[in-house]
Amino acid sequence: MALGKGYQNQHCGMARALEEVGERWTLLIVRDAFYGVRRYSDFLAHLEMPRAVLAERLHALTELGVFVKRTGPDAPRGEYELTDRGLALWPVLAALSAWAAQELTDLAAAVYEHAPCGGALPDRMTCATCGGMVRLEDIIVAPGITMDMTRTDPVSIAMRQPRRLLTPIR
Amino acid sequence: MALGKGYQNQHCGMARALEEVGERWTLLIVRDAFYGVRRYSDFLAHLEMPRAVLAERLHALTELGVFVKRTGPDAPRGEYELTDRGLALWPVLAALSAWAAQELTDLAAAVYEHAPCGGALPDRMTCATCGGMVRLEDIIVAPGITMDMTRTDPVSIAMRQPRRLLTPIR
Repeated sequence: MALGKGYQNQHCGMARALEEVGERWTLLIVRDAFYGVRRYSDFLAHLEMPRAVLAERLHALTELGVFVKRTGPDAPRGEYELTDRGLALWPVLAALSAWAAQELTDLAAAVYEHAPCGGALPDRMTCATCGGMVRLEDIIVAPGITMDMTRTDPVSIAMRQPRRLLTPIR
Repeated sequence: MALGKGYQNQHCGMARALEEVGERWTLLIVRDAFYGVRRYSDFLAHLEMPRAVLAERLHALTELGVFVKRTGPDAPRGEYELTDRGLALWPVLAALSAWAAQELTDLAAAVYEHAPCGGALPDRMTCATCGGMVRLEDIIVAPGITMDMTRTDPVSIAMRQPRRLLTPIR
């Protein structure tokens, strides 16, 4: 996922992180994994990205240790599961989501809540009601008023209901 | 800065944020602005990106309200200054930096410290020593052991010494 000549001279951690995961589409794949997407076909139908690009990104993210690929009788073509390294990317997505909610106020496609208390999650990491860091599994993502309810792929259908992050979409 | 067909269907805030600022190079321009870069020529020499791409990105970020462009006798060609909307992107860069420091341990190009107490900033937003959120102007970025000390553009030279975020590079 090299970003072209010159980028190699940007040695700071932000530049390296962008080189590894900042590629167009890559963070959307990781976002979908937090939503519970695990299957190639579900990523494909939800993200509507080119097949070859998706396959390449999933491979690269697995090589990087963001995903582990598991196969089994239930998943003959394999499922991609976030590793601890992948889960550690939540603050990046959380910050993007919080910035968008604050600054790009024309959209409200998703609402984030703390499952145990129903509190709001302004930064998607700490609860405004009960305070403190929240567990990823306790973050509920619910449809907002601008959610597109017309899409019929399995991920879009699942996302029409409030659901906890990381709960696999089947 | 549209990201191609299909991306428009990704209505969530993360997708919108990535559409606006997730473009290749864009977040590196914003990072440089936090380092204190304000001039086109300094961005150009430090980022080593194509001139036309830099000009287009600076224009788009100004249109978006991330930068305000100021001109004056001291800056006849203009300077780009982060607005409140731009400053609100720090958590995105902070999360990328913290993730890289934790997960990509082969590099240590930059070290972050809290100016008043010298404390470490593991997440680049809160101080491990005195606790609480830190002011951006109180974040010191200092060269780490893998910093490239051979570059001779004005930004690289300035970054050889510890310096506070947002202090203009002249």
